[in-house]
Amino acid sequence: MAGFRYALHIEYDGTPYHGWQSQSGGKTVQDAIERAIEKLKEGPHRITCAGRTDAGVHALGQVAHLDLAKEWRPDKLRDALNAHLSQAGEAVAILDAAPAPEGFDARLSAIRRHYCYRILNRRPPSALNRHKVWHVARPLDADTMHAAAQTILGRHDFTTFRAAACQAKSPVRTLERLDVTRAGEEIRIEASARSFLHNQVRSMVGSLVRIGLGAWPLAEMRAALDAADRARCGPVAPPDGLYFMQVDYPEGKAPFGARPS
Amino acid sequence: MAGFRYALHIEYDGTPYHGWQSQSGGKTVQDAIERAIEKLKEGPHRITCAGRTDAGVHALGQVAHLDLAKEWRPDKLRDALNAHLSQAGEAVAILDAAPAPEGFDARLSAIRRHYCYRILNRRPPSALNRHKVWHVARPLDADTMHAAAQTILGRHDFTTFRAAACQAKSPVRTLERLDVTRAGEEIRIEASARSFLHNQVRSMVGSLVRIGLGAWPLAEMRAALDAADRARCGPVAPPDGLYFMQVDYPEGKAPFGARPS
Repeated sequence: MAGFRYALHIEYDGTPYHGWQSQSGGKTVQDAIERAIEKLKEGPHRITCAGRTDAGVHALGQVAHLDLAKEWRPDKLRDALNAHLSQAGEAVAILDAAPAPEGFDARLSAIRRHYCYRILNRRPPSALNRHKVWHVARPLDADTMHAAAQTILGRHDFTTFRAAACQAKSPVRTLERLDVTRAGEEIRIEASARSFLHNQVRSMVGSLVRIGLGAWPLAEMRAALDAADRARCGPVAPPDGLYFMQVDYPEGKAPFGARPS
Repeated sequence: MAGFRYALHIEYDGTPYHGWQSQSGGKTVQDAIERAIEKLKEGPHRITCAGRTDAGVHALGQVAHLDLAKEWRPDKLRDALNAHLSQAGEAVAILDAAPAPEGFDARLSAIRRHYCYRILNRRPPSALNRHKVWHVARPLDADTMHAAAQTILGRHDFTTFRAAACQAKSPVRTLERLDVTRAGEEIRIEASARSFLHNQVRSMVGSLVRIGLGAWPLAEMRAALDAADRARCGPVAPPDGLYFMQVDYPEGKAPFGARPS
């Protein structure tokens, strides 16, 4: 590999973007960052992220890597990219930049991904967090949702909770965490796994909401999983409430050191 | 007074609005709500709020009153207004509606107003809370800011912290609370008083930030106040970080009951 590899820790508001990945005719997060890199006079560049997010999905802890021809002081690289992103009016900020550890690849080196899904559970819609939460007007029973979530932890065929368009070779994943907690009017669902299938978090959230509303019994979460049948999935939750929170890397390959989970 | 008076508890994102008050050629929060009321077939209506907010200022706890010709179930009134506001794409939500207590006036009955100012204090700008916080990139000393804030509590001539355009008859106000606290990367400034002068909170915040940066000594906060000279005020903080949080009414005139301060 020629040049110097850097890791970026990235925050973005997914609302104005057609997701992470570059595509013809769409404004994407990847394009925004690559345009900022071009302004560094480093020429055309491709960056690789830990987890591609769909249109409307947000990130507080996306990680990406890029290879530059010259060596940069990491804080100068971060500040220069932020200056170009701000000037372009992008809803993207580089929170941190660091030299990549030997052999680091933002996607391939990742050993755990953490997502958070926010539901605003009250009668009136949100004025201040439009597009940042899923508004569910009828009361949700968060305790029952949490109990249902615990029944699908572990290694399973997640076909039920996988988008038809998912390109992963195997539908088997190991779900390490799926916690549902309420704080006032807000319900948060925190999900962790080595990797997720396409739309898996939003599919699980949509199904948990059916249970939280009392439309499904608690046992349906596991029954739907065991059926390995996409038709048993609840309505997929909208992207608005989903946040890519954090990526974990093994010791020696963590560009930003250990962060609290 | 003819008809039935109702109080509304209102949340809004101030970003797309030219402030609360109706004005020619501007999109305002008042206009948005009055248009929703017209859709109730109640005819043209004027509403009165507890505290007019400037362009870009947000509210979690604005209160307003209106007089309707017919009697409404308060929850139906709230839901109908929210339906019309959502349909119109407004960033305004009615959190609660209640019959107004005898003699209630949203502005004249208020005995205390609470504001919160949010500063994001880190090197990278915000991607997820653009227009919702003031980004101050250099480190702020929140403890020193808090100590400075305590020196101007009480009843004073607040000319220094008052916009030139302020129309209040007297510059004397009683500042009951001005607390500065840090939670991670965010600094919050909470201000309470019976009433505030125009731009008073943003003027005090701008001056406290000068102190937090070390550009002014702690004692300058009180010295600037005592000078009663607008030229001694720090740069006025932008509207983005300001939230109108709550209005207090005396017992017997609190339409929504007592809320925690």
